[in-house]
Amino acid sequence: MTELVRFETVDLRFPTSIDLAGSDAMNPDPDYSAAYLTIRTEAGDSGHGFVFTIGRGNDVQVAAIDALAPLVQGLDIDAAIADMGGLSRKLVYDSQLRWLGPEKGVMHMAIGAVINAVWDLAARRAGKPLWEFLSGMSVDQIVDLIDFRYLSDALTPSAATDILQSAFPGRATRAEALLTYGYPAYTTEPGWLGYSDEKLARLAAEAVSDGFGQIKLKVGGDLSDDLRRLKIARDTVGPGVRIAVDANQRWDVATAIEWIRQLQPYEPSWIEEPTSPDDVLGHAAIRKNIAPLKVATGEHVQNRVVFKQLLQAGAIDVLQIDATRVGGVNENIAILLLAAQFGVPVCPHAGGVGLCELVQHLSMFDFVAVSGSLDDRMIEHAAHLHEHFVHPAVVQGGRYRAPIAAGFSAEIRADSIAQYQFPGGTQWQDS
Amino acid sequence: MTELVRFETVDLRFPTSIDLAGSDAMNPDPDYSAAYLTIRTEAGDSGHGFVFTIGRGNDVQVAAIDALAPLVQGLDIDAAIADMGGLSRKLVYDSQLRWLGPEKGVMHMAIGAVINAVWDLAARRAGKPLWEFLSGMSVDQIVDLIDFRYLSDALTPSAATDILQSAFPGRATRAEALLTYGYPAYTTEPGWLGYSDEKLARLAAEAVSDGFGQIKLKVGGDLSDDLRRLKIARDTVGPGVRIAVDANQRWDVATAIEWIRQLQPYEPSWIEEPTSPDDVLGHAAIRKNIAPLKVATGEHVQNRVVFKQLLQAGAIDVLQIDATRVGGVNENIAILLLAAQFGVPVCPHAGGVGLCELVQHLSMFDFVAVSGSLDDRMIEHAAHLHEHFVHPAVVQGGRYRAPIAAGFSAEIRADSIAQYQFPGGTQWQDS
Repeated sequence: MTELVRFETVDLRFPTSIDLAGSDAMNPDPDYSAAYLTIRTEAGDSGHGFVFTIGRGNDVQVAAIDALAPLVQGLDIDAAIADMGGLSRKLVYDSQLRWLGPEKGVMHMAIGAVINAVWDLAARRAGKPLWEFLSGMSVDQIVDLIDFRYLSDALTPSAATDILQSAFPGRATRAEALLTYGYPAYTTEPGWLGYSDEKLARLAAEAVSDGFGQIKLKVGGDLSDDLRRLKIARDTVGPGVRIAVDANQRWDVATAIEWIRQLQPYEPSWIEEPTSPDDVLGHAAIRKNIAPLKVATGEHVQNRVVFKQLLQAGAIDVLQIDATRVGGVNENIAILLLAAQFGVPVCPHAGGVGLCELVQHLSMFDFVAVSGSLDDRMIEHAAHLHEHFVHPAVVQGGRYRAPIAAGFSAEIRADSIAQYQFPGGTQWQDS
Repeated sequence: MTELVRFETVDLRFPTSIDLAGSDAMNPDPDYSAAYLTIRTEAGDSGHGFVFTIGRGNDVQVAAIDALAPLVQGLDIDAAIADMGGLSRKLVYDSQLRWLGPEKGVMHMAIGAVINAVWDLAARRAGKPLWEFLSGMSVDQIVDLIDFRYLSDALTPSAATDILQSAFPGRATRAEALLTYGYPAYTTEPGWLGYSDEKLARLAAEAVSDGFGQIKLKVGGDLSDDLRRLKIARDTVGPGVRIAVDANQRWDVATAIEWIRQLQPYEPSWIEEPTSPDDVLGHAAIRKNIAPLKVATGEHVQNRVVFKQLLQAGAIDVLQIDATRVGGVNENIAILLLAAQFGVPVCPHAGGVGLCELVQHLSMFDFVAVSGSLDDRMIEHAAHLHEHFVHPAVVQGGRYRAPIAAGFSAEIRADSIAQYQFPGGTQWQDS
């Protein structure tokens, strides 16, 4: 028996508010941060997980991860890896901690960090990148990872089995294709709300020359700004590159419908987060009123129960998973299967700290073992903060290269931790 | 200018798991706890607020409240009290902290504790119990407390004004009636899942002799247990006393419908939390299939956006606010107005630590200034832990007496804090 003996958290904050990378209509000055966890076995294996936040409160997120330490310290790691579904349920259904959500917010994201760290450790021990490790599991093993509680009116174990069985025969071919061609990406780099028109145009032109087929612009602050910026972007990228827009929850339902109609001449490829991520019926009303324009959401959707309803209500055209918002890999696999069940493509949210690194594994697993398709699918990409990762995500020619290093690409460099640890790191002592 | 100078939190835990008071199908062994906040001005005025939790993780909740200290320390308390709507928006829309929800879970409950503490302080300074203090505000002042963001498709400022105007003429008469007759209560005391059949029968008989018109039983663990316990309860209380049942989120949609049909012969007055509190569409499906039996939910509903949808979807017959789950008094007033707009009665969740103390003020305000009605309305009551409060809620003859002490009844006794502070208090040092 190999025990998990180390559980160490750190509050990492990067001063991104200085150059307004990451700025949008709801988040004018984020300091991109990570509540970062390292676990280690007595045999010396390690795993890493984290929650992405945008600054203040990252200490609360660290405290929430620490609250889970007693549930995993001393764990038999071989048994845990052999029953990741059981480990997930153990964390989610600790009744006292569950009261703090249930299954939402700080406590649920903490569970995701722990689960993801154990997956990182498991894939490292297997010597495989996580996407390949997951894609090598049997259909029954994958189904066993999922907590079907509250899902059975939309997705049953047998329906999940059917989806995975259908994709089974082509797994090897698609994995090979990923290693050769990678996975489509789009870039949010030009579109941060705090950027000047000149910077927007320059970065939009760069995105096209870098091979991206879609860029994304933040909107929702001021309508005339949005129209001017969309015109600049469309004039720059031409008609052949898609432009998505992202309102970051800024609008009420009626405002969203009216505002989006004004943007329609610029043919946005989707409208992201038009209103509260909690408002399933609001998203459904917006989608109905702006069709054929598409609605996308998910980066702030708290758990599989809300995703289930977004799909049941016909509220979204594009489902955007986030690697650190829900309860980790297990819940994200449930969400991938829900999306497949309803025939809705998954285009993950990324950027932040390490979200590109993590979520590429989930999309590649989706392609190999679940949806079997790249149609209308792409992963968001933002250029910043990758240098802090031991195995950074690589995008070339507008596509994510398939990770080949063992694990979940979650490990942050020791020198970055020393510099950006808050408040003791050298970055914060100097400021 | 009077500044807010003290912001002090404490982790309080009561060892309720010993006698299984509070046990249900999802929470077998809670230790009822409070993340407790005291604020004080330089002039010596104080206010108290807290979040109710059930044990582990109460330290995370305390950390979340502490994260708000920089936003209120040094605040001009006169200006804050004069613009409680503005203070609420300041806390809810701190963009970096909002990322941790948004508006849900640990961080949102922390905002509720701070807002409630300021309301306690405001009512104390005014020398009035909170229900009376709120009921003395003008219609415009009340409307200004509310954050209508994400509500405007269901409740506008003008609709809220109409509701409050309609209730305005009868305010004084209803306040007088409350002081004379109190507000109807029901009791959960007999029904905890961990209690023996004998204890259930004894406490159910006591509830009837104490004057309660409704008792509530926990269900959802085992169907044959539920049927046996319901029979005991019905045989004990007779046909004239209502019996509500509470599944505490135990079921999926289909299971809920099937299980509830089995309970139908015992005529439960409502079915509480049949499934996930996040599942608006699930509640709607259950309600449609078990009609005319009634569906109640709300104690774990995270914010006004989900309540809005439960009402829009026709998913509930009874709306159960909780005093410490959402963003404080302001958001609960928004929810009371939503309920009034849709004609759904509010029957608050209570029990826990101090929930009876707080929520009685909200229901009494609802009666005086919003709904103007007691029809089908009652506040939950559980007998334990009131002794720790300086001004405990008083229930006599099955009715809450209207509080007359100034404030929100939120202050916990100093000797209780010394005993139950975790882990340093005398209670926990001895155990």
